[in-house]
Amino acid sequence: MQAVPPALERLITDLSRLPGIGRKTASRLALYIMRRPASEARALAEDLATLHGSIRLCSRCFAFSEADPCQICDDARRDERLVCVVEEPGDMMSIEKTAAFRGVYHILHGVLAPMDGMGPDELKVRELFERVNRGGVEEVLIATSSTVPGEATASYLMDQLRRYPVRLTRLACGIPMGMDIKYADEHTLTRAIESRCPVDR
Amino acid sequence: MQAVPPALERLITDLSRLPGIGRKTASRLALYIMRRPASEARALAEDLATLHGSIRLCSRCFAFSEADPCQICDDARRDERLVCVVEEPGDMMSIEKTAAFRGVYHILHGVLAPMDGMGPDELKVRELFERVNRGGVEEVLIATSSTVPGEATASYLMDQLRRYPVRLTRLACGIPMGMDIKYADEHTLTRAIESRCPVDR
Repeated sequence: MQAVPPALERLITDLSRLPGIGRKTASRLALYIMRRPASEARALAEDLATLHGSIRLCSRCFAFSEADPCQICDDARRDERLVCVVEEPGDMMSIEKTAAFRGVYHILHGVLAPMDGMGPDELKVRELFERVNRGGVEEVLIATSSTVPGEATASYLMDQLRRYPVRLTRLACGIPMGMDIKYADEHTLTRAIESRCPVDR
Repeated sequence: MQAVPPALERLITDLSRLPGIGRKTASRLALYIMRRPASEARALAEDLATLHGSIRLCSRCFAFSEADPCQICDDARRDERLVCVVEEPGDMMSIEKTAAFRGVYHILHGVLAPMDGMGPDELKVRELFERVNRGGVEEVLIATSSTVPGEATASYLMDQLRRYPVRLTRLACGIPMGMDIKYADEHTLTRAIESRCPVDR
């Protein structure tokens, strides 16, 4: 199309490769960037160019980090005996936002999905078993998503971790806070009934 | 938040400044970029860094272009006597996609919005009058959006352009193709009735 100069077209193509960004959104973003001062585009470019060089995986928990060990693993106030296993770095960020968890993490970097070629060897699973085997871990909180692959990954980990002398826990499943019961789906409601809690009197 | 290393945080902040991208989407994009090879981030960085240097405004139509005049203004097959006035480069791209327009463009780079400090001097309005005044233009098709500021801009342009010996036209307004009449809003339906077309017999 003659209307889009090649330099702009290249940027649109780059942006449309990002997840959830179609060609229309990519065009809108590229035109926005074009209208803004060049310095803003250069700042974004600089941050992109240096990203992979600045960030590595923490050798203990496999979080994205500039330091090794990462700030969380290196924080003496965190309880190293409690390890929360999550699928992705984004899951860890969500849990950190709650400030409700004072243990440390283990990031799998994926879920078991045999159809997509994701077996235990593709995840940081061996590293989890080694970490538990080295000792010092008292509880493993499995915090994979309550999706089919998330549940399958959790089952696999629970099977494998039973041979270690650690307490195994999972995130509670039930009605989301603030949700009207009539809008809860039947699977969630079933789980909420099965996992019903005693009331303090 | 300790969970996000500074280099990743900077990228998330950059991305969340883009229109329609909130912090959550920005985090998701940044984590995706982090998971992909560094070469992809560098390619995007390179295209961003060179964008403003490669692209200028065409001195005739004010489109974003690497050459001056732009490919459309420089195309002998386009009819220079028919000038389509649009708000933004993105509007020109949308019209070009239809391949229904064989004239040339004039890009205002905005709409009149006095409350936001956008008067005629902030737009390429004087340049439009000069272009029409130089002669060679037979028809000006005003293709601003059918929004309040778009209509206000169109009214202003029509008022000002009446003193030149050119034909003034506007895009037709009416029912969008494929839309059920019962879902059309009343303003659109009113316009469609007022602008009703004779049927060929």
